[in-house]
Amino acid sequence: VVGSSWLEVEKALAERFANGKLTREDLPTPALLLDLDAFEYNIGKMAQHVRSHGLALRPHGKSHKCPEIAKALVRAGAVGICAAKISEAEVFALGGVGGLLITTAVIGRYKIERAILLAKSRPETIFCVDDEQNIRDLSDAARQGRVRLNLAIDLRVGRRTGIQPLQPAVALAELIESLPHVRLAGLQAYAGHVAHVAGWEERKKASVAAMSPAVETRQLLERKGIGVSFLSAGSTGTYDIDVEIAGVTELQPGSFIFMDMVYNNIGGRGGPIFDDFRNSLTVLTTVVSQPGDGVAIVDGGFKAFATDQPCTPLPKNRESIYSWGGDEHGILTYADVARTAKVGDTVEFIVPHCDPSVNLYDRIFCLRGDRVEAVWPIAARGRSQ
Amino acid sequence: VVGSSWLEVEKALAERFANGKLTREDLPTPALLLDLDAFEYNIGKMAQHVRSHGLALRPHGKSHKCPEIAKALVRAGAVGICAAKISEAEVFALGGVGGLLITTAVIGRYKIERAILLAKSRPETIFCVDDEQNIRDLSDAARQGRVRLNLAIDLRVGRRTGIQPLQPAVALAELIESLPHVRLAGLQAYAGHVAHVAGWEERKKASVAAMSPAVETRQLLERKGIGVSFLSAGSTGTYDIDVEIAGVTELQPGSFIFMDMVYNNIGGRGGPIFDDFRNSLTVLTTVVSQPGDGVAIVDGGFKAFATDQPCTPLPKNRESIYSWGGDEHGILTYADVARTAKVGDTVEFIVPHCDPSVNLYDRIFCLRGDRVEAVWPIAARGRSQ
Repeated sequence: VVGSSWLEVEKALAERFANGKLTREDLPTPALLLDLDAFEYNIGKMAQHVRSHGLALRPHGKSHKCPEIAKALVRAGAVGICAAKISEAEVFALGGVGGLLITTAVIGRYKIERAILLAKSRPETIFCVDDEQNIRDLSDAARQGRVRLNLAIDLRVGRRTGIQPLQPAVALAELIESLPHVRLAGLQAYAGHVAHVAGWEERKKASVAAMSPAVETRQLLERKGIGVSFLSAGSTGTYDIDVEIAGVTELQPGSFIFMDMVYNNIGGRGGPIFDDFRNSLTVLTTVVSQPGDGVAIVDGGFKAFATDQPCTPLPKNRESIYSWGGDEHGILTYADVARTAKVGDTVEFIVPHCDPSVNLYDRIFCLRGDRVEAVWPIAARGRSQ
Repeated sequence: VVGSSWLEVEKALAERFANGKLTREDLPTPALLLDLDAFEYNIGKMAQHVRSHGLALRPHGKSHKCPEIAKALVRAGAVGICAAKISEAEVFALGGVGGLLITTAVIGRYKIERAILLAKSRPETIFCVDDEQNIRDLSDAARQGRVRLNLAIDLRVGRRTGIQPLQPAVALAELIESLPHVRLAGLQAYAGHVAHVAGWEERKKASVAAMSPAVETRQLLERKGIGVSFLSAGSTGTYDIDVEIAGVTELQPGSFIFMDMVYNNIGGRGGPIFDDFRNSLTVLTTVVSQPGDGVAIVDGGFKAFATDQPCTPLPKNRESIYSWGGDEHGILTYADVARTAKVGDTVEFIVPHCDPSVNLYDRIFCLRGDRVEAVWPIAARGRSQ
């Protein structure tokens, strides 16, 4: 069974799994869980949505880092998968995933060597760039490696990476066009600061404002006779906004497959909770100590949940409030003392932020109801290079 | 070379490493670095300190999760290594580390089966307990497994796990003494809330207050004829406080091997910075985009640094201020614009909190000066079960 080698530590569990009898309550906690019904709903809904608007879907793999999930997305119609870094892309490629767009520039001699190796095995791979010297370095390496690299210009429509849109971007495009071993494949415009703007109308205004310079850059390039076959944009928060922006050709959302607390809280088109996609991702913990009435200590802390957001994990049963208890523990407090969990009870949580939480785990247990249907390796976990 | 299989992705790097020519600037970033001179200084200082007070040292392995580091500590005189969870202990045991104390109770049928397997291969292993039913479960499993388990009573001297000191703890000790397949090995009293109290005098008061019930519990047990061969306590923050508390027999500090920003900031015996141990741990990043004067974007974000503390990573050269740029990036701002790092430059950071930062990486690059002397696997990374 793919990715289930962990089960070797527990022959009893392996036997239960082989007999289809391994359930949620059997798992070693803290454990990362995927509700397959919710996950499949999310994939189907996003694929149908993007298709119905005539756009392409290239979901971001940094959210899951899991080739099995990437392949499920491609089976649903995705044209490929985004990877944040070259080392993440390598894992997807080894796992049988094509159509990779690497969304951070590949910088440095040794990483560029890896990019050349990847392009040789997966010639359709696209690399984002925003720096003139980096483009020259990539072109030189491509010449030596006897490949032609597909480049996408990363436009600075947010607060992180990218070249300024319009004239600075056009100058980079002209440089790419002038070099024989690289070609301009498209544009990337990721507005990270827009994804979590609270309120759908506010978010729409912010996204249209952020995307306008990208769309104008595409038009400017085309007026100069420089073809741009794609403009990749969008996040889970703007999935139903960016499809309406003329000139955007593909979406690269990531979190919609899982959802998390911060996305739930940004507000949807129809109300204060953004629930267009279901919460498929949870972390299962066990109560390991019960110091008194109304308090229970679970076995998940800073190493079980990412802590980059101001909120704390949300118990799925809403019966307690979680507060951080350090690296290894969480402290649950119960308003209704009679509901206090006992030592050995399990408690399941929706996570504050999905991507860096998934990055803490080596595998994800895929559940159909309470039964473990598959165990998928998070094969690119830790691959941030 | 141990733990250097990652180098297979880069034959050029492997060759440089084999020839002793692999340096800091060659590494794929973000990368976790260990300054061996500082690390060896820290180990030597702590071992000498604890020995000179006639106590035992059993450092906490949750900080490093690395069997190579555990073995270096044992070579320096540690009597063993603490492990936070059973799955972490398994990795240390497989890596050749003995004298394990598992500091969180082992709860649940399958984990208890694993505890029995571990005790069979490492009979000196000690398991912490704080719950009557769990002790009975362990005893039953030990009977079936034909082993005798060493138990330590975890005392609640902090805000997380543990049984109340004095009479409740004595009742658990009497239960253990009454069961044939478990034996009382000692007491654990870990006051997590004391470790980071600001100011040495304040910290001393807090630690003495927290430890007093533990010391009294030990005395009470001995008056009842129940021998307690150890009382394990202490953190990096109280390393020079708890050795003076009569009745404490061993220390279980973790972070001193690495140090981090939050420990530097608690204040030392001699001044506002706690610098008794050196900063041996850093994260190396590369500038991947430079959007304008005074700003540089590095390739390390929420997946490169733990985010559980309010501070942000500190550039070792103190030339810029880091702010979070999401999962994959950090934003550096420079007061002196002329010092702005360029695309391709590397920037090295001291981390806010060492333990959960180390838990993000699969390996640690051990440097002697600028040269990579070893690459050690963080073999128990993600083992929070």
